[in-house]
Amino acid sequence: MDTKSENIIFDTVAIIGIGLIGSSIARGIQKNKIARRVFGYAKTIATRKKAEELGYMDKIFDTSAGAVHNADLIILCVPVGSNADIMREIKEHLKMGAIITDVGSVKKAVIDQIDMYLPDGVSFIPGHPIAGTEFSGPESGFAELFNKKCCLLTPYTKTDKGQLNKLISFWEELGMFVDTMSPEMHDLVLATISHLPHLVAFNLVDTASKLENRENQEFTKYSAGGFLDYTRVASSDPIMWRDIFINNKKAVIEILDSFIDGLTDLKENIQTDNANKLESIFTETRKKRNKILDSIKKIESE
Amino acid sequence: MDTKSENIIFDTVAIIGIGLIGSSIARGIQKNKIARRVFGYAKTIATRKKAEELGYMDKIFDTSAGAVHNADLIILCVPVGSNADIMREIKEHLKMGAIITDVGSVKKAVIDQIDMYLPDGVSFIPGHPIAGTEFSGPESGFAELFNKKCCLLTPYTKTDKGQLNKLISFWEELGMFVDTMSPEMHDLVLATISHLPHLVAFNLVDTASKLENRENQEFTKYSAGGFLDYTRVASSDPIMWRDIFINNKKAVIEILDSFIDGLTDLKENIQTDNANKLESIFTETRKKRNKILDSIKKIESE
Repeated sequence: MDTKSENIIFDTVAIIGIGLIGSSIARGIQKNKIARRVFGYAKTIATRKKAEELGYMDKIFDTSAGAVHNADLIILCVPVGSNADIMREIKEHLKMGAIITDVGSVKKAVIDQIDMYLPDGVSFIPGHPIAGTEFSGPESGFAELFNKKCCLLTPYTKTDKGQLNKLISFWEELGMFVDTMSPEMHDLVLATISHLPHLVAFNLVDTASKLENRENQEFTKYSAGGFLDYTRVASSDPIMWRDIFINNKKAVIEILDSFIDGLTDLKENIQTDNANKLESIFTETRKKRNKILDSIKKIESE
Repeated sequence: MDTKSENIIFDTVAIIGIGLIGSSIARGIQKNKIARRVFGYAKTIATRKKAEELGYMDKIFDTSAGAVHNADLIILCVPVGSNADIMREIKEHLKMGAIITDVGSVKKAVIDQIDMYLPDGVSFIPGHPIAGTEFSGPESGFAELFNKKCCLLTPYTKTDKGQLNKLISFWEELGMFVDTMSPEMHDLVLATISHLPHLVAFNLVDTASKLENRENQEFTKYSAGGFLDYTRVASSDPIMWRDIFINNKKAVIEILDSFIDGLTDLKENIQTDNANKLESIFTETRKKRNKILDSIKKIESE
């Protein structure tokens, strides 16, 4: 008997969508032996071929229906706008008692997409492992991606409590800290700590690019660490982000409006030479940012 | 004779202001032996004491006038709003033929502050080594801070060509690539690649903080790499940044307006579900950001 077999939580896990997250989960399962088998499906032949070559899944299927057929846990790792399509493909092929979860950065819209196709006897637990890099595709995954990061689960009316606990254990085995909250709160939190910063990063690069075109010279090459750090995420997958913004429209627009108000205040304080006000804003911000760092360090040392 | 004595460019260098940049220059000079003596001055007793303990300067003076008295090169490393004060203190104590330079992130306003106090026989070469971290103070400096980074010099009517070349060699000995441009172009470039991103970082933290207060919970702790990366600079020195924004008001407001216009466009595209447009903006941005990375790698491998 395998010495690590006591870790096994699910017999068969099906991963639908084999990008950075899907491939990292598969590698994590393999490394930590938390399922007996991992099946996979990806939309394009190229990705399926690549995943087969990389060899961290037991079998790659040509259809999503084939991949989920015998699965106890199905993890949807597709752009958040594609969940309804996948549910239409798999809904008649799911095993009784199976759990469906997802990894999308938006929860309310994903619940709306999935819930309407959910068969009786299958539980859906909306989820979001908050981990990522700016790289995409099956070759960019790695088993340690989730280590010491947070995973938010947003149980709703159709989530079974026992199955929720099983899924919590699954993410914990992959190294994550798991918290639960309402889908609405999740969407507002993520709009703030992730979606807005990504939108800002895209827009910083775009603003610089427009000025370079106007002045007909390349000056972003002078960027020290700063510009590169905060625009790193502007290299992320365009389709994934398009879907996130559209599917989390309400929260994103709310926080974007608040952000633009803040910028407009700062602009007025600069225009009127309000040195005291600027200094106090920046001092408060520094304190706050250092507090965030402390909180994260505390979580990581737990 | 010291084997590295052929590197010596200046006999005595005076560093006015011993924070991250000033102390890094002192350490860099010491390590690479590019001056025979380094003198220093800082406004507070605490900083002077700390710098003395750290021991990378030959002498720390209680007055700026004392520090510059015998110096061939004076490097002003104070917040950009403090240059006029320093010039009033040192103008009657400068050696004939000395060079004054600075390291400020704004050039036009600094020239205005310094030029009016510049005695005959002393040359001013406005400068800006584009390097930094989010840490401040004499203890945060290190000799390699400037390595493979860009330094922009913005010669103006009172800059002597021969002395400009000497200063270029100085920064090159510290590991930098040196470029020259007009003060106006510098200020616009820096507004775009540094000042705007910093303003945005301060404002991202502030926006998140306001929402946490409203919802009465701490959720920035869920931040994965992203939020931490692009808000890193929000931990920077508040007084330095207050001065930069006020002293580069024109360029900062110009680029901030362009940035807010871009955000407003993105908001409209999200509100109207304009998926194609969003995807094409993000695809272009990703291309552009990867191009910036390539340009920087090219500079670094030169």
